Amino acid sequence: MKNIAVILSGCGVFDGAEIHEATLTLLAIAKHNCKYICFAPDMNQHHVINHINGDEVKQTRNVLEESARIARGDIYPTSTLQIDDFDALILPGGFGAAKNLSDFAFNGENCVVNSEIAEIIKQFHSKQKPIGAMCISPVILANVLRNVNVSIGSDKATSEAIEIMGAIHTSSNHGEVIVDADNKIVTTPCYMLDASIIDIETGTNKLVTELLKMI
Amino acid sequence: MKNIAVILSGCGVFDGAEIHEATLTLLAIAKHNCKYICFAPDMNQHHVINHINGDEVKQTRNVLEESARIARGDIYPTSTLQIDDFDALILPGGFGAAKNLSDFAFNGENCVVNSEIAEIIKQFHSKQKPIGAMCISPVILANVLRNVNVSIGSDKATSEAIEIMGAIHTSSNHGEVIVDADNKIVTTPCYMLDASIIDIETGTNKLVTELLKMI
Repeated sequence: MKNIAVILSGCGVFDGAEIHEATLTLLAIAKHNCKYICFAPDMNQHHVINHINGDEVKQTRNVLEESARIARGDIYPTSTLQIDDFDALILPGGFGAAKNLSDFAFNGENCVVNSEIAEIIKQFHSKQKPIGAMCISPVILANVLRNVNVSIGSDKATSEAIEIMGAIHTSSNHGEVIVDADNKIVTTPCYMLDASIIDIETGTNKLVTELLKMI
Repeated sequence: MKNIAVILSGCGVFDGAEIHEATLTLLAIAKHNCKYICFAPDMNQHHVINHINGDEVKQTRNVLEESARIARGDIYPTSTLQIDDFDALILPGGFGAAKNLSDFAFNGENCVVNSEIAEIIKQFHSKQKPIGAMCISPVILANVLRNVNVSIGSDKATSEAIEIMGAIHTSSNHGEVIVDADNKIVTTPCYMLDASIIDIETGTNKLVTELLKMI
């Protein structure tokens, strides 16, 4: 049985991990007869957003604690992730990837990726273990690994930022995955497009299928 | 296209709606070519639980605002739910059903169901529109409707409480649904058993299939 590490970034599309993408990633891993283990950085969220009106809420929430809601409590700090225990890595999307795991939401192509997350990605890549990323998370791979081929769908500003960071952006449509076989990277747009929850299931399933081919 | 109202109770198994059950309910509805609209009561949660260690967190969170994380912002107060707009009702589980939608977690068979939720259930039932409930949520149907046949799996204390409230409890296993055809009620145990996320997908899918047969 293959072990797949999933890095979450909070709980909720506007300030954390996108819940449908994260949940359907876990489902896709289980349906492929693999085991998932969830991780998140033990740090405060950049901010808390009211998901009805978009207002910032004056509250402090911890990325690991909020991510635990999606993982039903079964989650570990990214600082404890042992690369040798895993066959592949997946980063679901949501603004948490661009606000907590990195500051891409604020600084675009000049963003900085959280050092724990960057180190984990570098190690999976250097050990030729496949990495999957969905929605906005491919910008993190572009920033950390630079010369890789990824997709966030078709958003012009984001795809341009990806190319400025030294990566290649390939456009994709609902439920499609882009495979960079040389770098063992699979990406899919999910809610970076105006997608339905069925598109998310399709994309996450295909992403896991392609990752497993490269282990 | 059939419209199904989904009532959420927060965001996270220990103080709100169970995220996998809620997400996979929305997916099952969409895969059955139906439309879902999410609702939640506009009230404060009973409390906030740290999902890693189970401790209570000194913070106030609103059930509607937290539920909006699962619904990606597309959610309405239960006070605005118009029964005539919907063909069926579904209540996913999680402690939110037993702490926010009712106080079953604290008062068992002597629990009180939130008046808005109780009224919605009574109206769907009196208009012979089917109702689905999963995990712990069937206790709400037992309390509001009394003489109905439901299942929460096999937990002894909970099934006894259901019978004391005047309902019938039928045991069920992973992914099984119990159909009360006379009352148009479908229930499934989900995480009231030691289930996998695949069991949740199976149970939510079967629940929606059975509900649609009764519309």
